[in-house]
Amino acid sequence: MQTHFSYKNIMEMEQRQRAVFINSLGGFKSVCLIGTKNKTEQTNLAIFNSLVHIGANPPLIGFVVRPDSAERHTLNNILETGFYTINHINENIYKQAHQTSARYPVEISEFAATGLNEQYHPNFFSPYVLESHIKLGVAFKEKINFSINETIFIIGEIQDVYLPENCINIDGFVDIEATGTITCSGLDSYHTTKKISRLSYAKPNTFPVKV
Amino acid sequence: MQTHFSYKNIMEMEQRQRAVFINSLGGFKSVCLIGTKNKTEQTNLAIFNSLVHIGANPPLIGFVVRPDSAERHTLNNILETGFYTINHINENIYKQAHQTSARYPVEISEFAATGLNEQYHPNFFSPYVLESHIKLGVAFKEKINFSINETIFIIGEIQDVYLPENCINIDGFVDIEATGTITCSGLDSYHTTKKISRLSYAKPNTFPVKV
Repeated sequence: MQTHFSYKNIMEMEQRQRAVFINSLGGFKSVCLIGTKNKTEQTNLAIFNSLVHIGANPPLIGFVVRPDSAERHTLNNILETGFYTINHINENIYKQAHQTSARYPVEISEFAATGLNEQYHPNFFSPYVLESHIKLGVAFKEKINFSINETIFIIGEIQDVYLPENCINIDGFVDIEATGTITCSGLDSYHTTKKISRLSYAKPNTFPVKV
Repeated sequence: MQTHFSYKNIMEMEQRQRAVFINSLGGFKSVCLIGTKNKTEQTNLAIFNSLVHIGANPPLIGFVVRPDSAERHTLNNILETGFYTINHINENIYKQAHQTSARYPVEISEFAATGLNEQYHPNFFSPYVLESHIKLGVAFKEKINFSINETIFIIGEIQDVYLPENCINIDGFVDIEATGTITCSGLDSYHTTKKISRLSYAKPNTFPVKV
């Protein structure tokens, strides 16, 4: 049975219930761990579920920062140093990944607090997550303030990609399901995936077929 | 075996290969159909894989429009009329959903071309997708031009939500997996999901448990 919620119904919900409800409606999300370090070598790790593709030439990726103190540590480090890492989450580390959303004080690193390990690669300042299977080194490019509420959008350029060699198809497609990357819904629900299929490039006078 | 791609390696890729590669790296995406109509009652339907949560109070949702003619029909209709619908995609309609990305001329509706059905709800201008299980009526609020490339970010406010009554938990969580909502990766790979678990709200001195 279909039901309907109007804008008025939504605004009359209890605040936490509304946050959970609205966060669920955007579909399955791209969830990742963002690793940063400040100028005094203090590391930070935080989970974000708002990764979005911005462009391939040059390779640009964006994410939303909510006006929230836990996420502000990540933002401050990015603005202070210009670099961050984006690390895919797999089923082996999803609890630790979720735990990074706890409001730790700035002097406690979520790496140490959750047991995830820092990893460094040549010529890159920010810490990667050792246990992640697909990881990107990103250079900060642009900060956009959304005037409609207090959210901030951060765009960065991909500098380095580390991933398993055998997950890359000849056409450039990366089989992230094969590497164990998971997705999330709402604020706290984690899901593995099962491929239905890839579909051929869509053209007006044909119908897509499985490739 | 881990492998590494530098920025230089990425920029030296063939253009189509790079687009497929970079689109894969952002993780599993929130994929949906956006339904619009222009002032002369011509409908349009287009698939987008960049839905992102912006806020719950008020309920705001955003998506990226690429500088691409197929997507411009959606953008033009939104700017002309102020309204659009966001419709979740399920396994029964993923081929039709993918097919909406073909470059149909503006006078051909992707509803008619793909066999998906328009549905109208009271007091809302734009067409919903009858075959979708979770659908949002959205009012346009803000257009942001990302100066770094030619992409555009559209923010809208959720006015109406239609969904199955039995998928809503008492705490506001919507079980979108139970409704059949799917996710995608790269430009053309579609996936169902399997829930690992929901986790409790993270606090510094405890470890998250399944809820």
